[in-house]
Amino acid sequence: MSASLRATAGAMRAVVVREFGGPEVLKVEEVAIPQAQGKQVLIKVSAVGVNPVETYIRSGTHNIKPPLPWTPGGDIAGVVEDVGKEATKFKKGDRVYTSRCVTGAYAEYTVAEEDSTFRLADRLSFQQGAAMGTPYLTAYRALFHRTHGKPGETVLIHGASGGVGLAAVQLAKARGMVVMGTAGSGEGMELVRKNGASHVFNHREEGYTDKIMAATAGVGVDLIIEMLANVNLEKDLELLARHGRVGVVGSRGRIEITPRLFMTKECWVIGVGRDTEKELGETMAALYAGFTQGTLNPVVGKEYSLDQAPQAHKDIIETKSAMGKMVLNI
Amino acid sequence: MSASLRATAGAMRAVVVREFGGPEVLKVEEVAIPQAQGKQVLIKVSAVGVNPVETYIRSGTHNIKPPLPWTPGGDIAGVVEDVGKEATKFKKGDRVYTSRCVTGAYAEYTVAEEDSTFRLADRLSFQQGAAMGTPYLTAYRALFHRTHGKPGETVLIHGASGGVGLAAVQLAKARGMVVMGTAGSGEGMELVRKNGASHVFNHREEGYTDKIMAATAGVGVDLIIEMLANVNLEKDLELLARHGRVGVVGSRGRIEITPRLFMTKECWVIGVGRDTEKELGETMAALYAGFTQGTLNPVVGKEYSLDQAPQAHKDIIETKSAMGKMVLNI
Repeated sequence: MSASLRATAGAMRAVVVREFGGPEVLKVEEVAIPQAQGKQVLIKVSAVGVNPVETYIRSGTHNIKPPLPWTPGGDIAGVVEDVGKEATKFKKGDRVYTSRCVTGAYAEYTVAEEDSTFRLADRLSFQQGAAMGTPYLTAYRALFHRTHGKPGETVLIHGASGGVGLAAVQLAKARGMVVMGTAGSGEGMELVRKNGASHVFNHREEGYTDKIMAATAGVGVDLIIEMLANVNLEKDLELLARHGRVGVVGSRGRIEITPRLFMTKECWVIGVGRDTEKELGETMAALYAGFTQGTLNPVVGKEYSLDQAPQAHKDIIETKSAMGKMVLNI
Repeated sequence: MSASLRATAGAMRAVVVREFGGPEVLKVEEVAIPQAQGKQVLIKVSAVGVNPVETYIRSGTHNIKPPLPWTPGGDIAGVVEDVGKEATKFKKGDRVYTSRCVTGAYAEYTVAEEDSTFRLADRLSFQQGAAMGTPYLTAYRALFHRTHGKPGETVLIHGASGGVGLAAVQLAKARGMVVMGTAGSGEGMELVRKNGASHVFNHREEGYTDKIMAATAGVGVDLIIEMLANVNLEKDLELLARHGRVGVVGSRGRIEITPRLFMTKECWVIGVGRDTEKELGETMAALYAGFTQGTLNPVVGKEYSLDQAPQAHKDIIETKSAMGKMVLNI
């Protein structure tokens, strides 16, 4: 950009990726503060949510491959700094969150469309606001738009102590489902229980799937929300009840399965991606109700500074026992 | 049975399995002709449909494990010989077919409930009648009850020249879908084309999936009906369009897959089993319309005698290129 434009817009610190690769390609640079156009809002960022998908895109192997240079992330919470000429929904000083940053989230300022920006309830911190986007959107889509979970059904959240997992536990509980969850540590199990699971299992323990089957009196579970399908998919097919469904939210490799398992119980395995614009309206309305009425309470886990983004990317993939949502404090 | 009962009922030849095992356990014995009770009909069998599922049950490894001795099969066509005291739908001499033999199908006589027995259209042979049960019920369930195929959608019948495959081709064509099919030989491909597929591919040819993608202009297919998931499931996930569905009808082993393929296009893999009684009514009504109105025409393949049942069981599993429905002529 020209020196004159930089002078007008002011400068900010942001993570800038100039080549795809490992966590080390996340470098903090000084760049121009973006400007809100039309119906956009400019937000001074307080906290940023870190999601596994950002590590996949960063590595260059994901089907989404943005043009470089690229600032990662979509989930933030902060304070409105400025609004575009046609924007009417917010004014400077409003506490807001969004999961659709137009200019990238790992930065001191970001721009978002006002339609995909929402008021942050007073009772929630900025860190919680940053934990509200991708995890809850993904969990809602998995549970309701894709696997069609119903009140009274039994759902197993396979990997329940991370961002999406805890969101799924809370959403399923609020909808009246019987919630079972797994975690990889005693602390994680406690967290899953506190957030609404009536049955909690340690997925590092030999034979834990037998305990899950026993908890369903041998019938199996109606629904599984799966965070690591490359490890668990075959087990999931065995754990399902007749006409059970698995929603695949995460997977990091290959797995051998017996497709006949689909046939004997007529089960379904369903991929979970992103809402369309039309579905997003429904989802955001449902989430907003939960956040303001208190059934949904984002759990903030490990916190990092903007300069520690490479460490956050390393931790979110390598952690053996997730404990809530990782955030960057700006 | 007592000698006096045998004298009353008369004797017949039937395949009797006295231990689970290979095709050689299919032995023809002389047994009593069964009697029609209540609302049942006794049918003098003319032709019997042979289905892969009967080989799985015979081997003793299937989740259905009937008490022994057991006479295999469910699909027959023949002539009503007698009816139970409360039966009103048929009289002696009526040409009928059923896919729900109560006493087993590989026999000179069988008993079925009149509600699951149907009049055989004059234009159809007994062999065609024996080819109408399981293959069409399975294909209908796969296409409409499980993967929710819609007119105008593109469907790939992966393994289209056998009993279920040709039934699926005809059903999809009649519903107004764009039908693609694969076979393992030139003859099989010709058969698939003749039965209504607009695009036919040889699944033994290197790179045939590239040709399928090209035929969809790179978009992928909406639906796949899969006869051999242990070989094809990974390819299927790659061939699907966004929100595409695979219905798993057959599988004979294990396969390694990349679950992330579910996520990127939000696809579904769905097991296909058997209709419930309620769904069966819908399916039979739809099939009856097609059989009488001429959109559905069962294709009879290799024919065997009752004594050749072991050879038929061998052939249906080992054949490299299916050519219609295998039947036993009684």
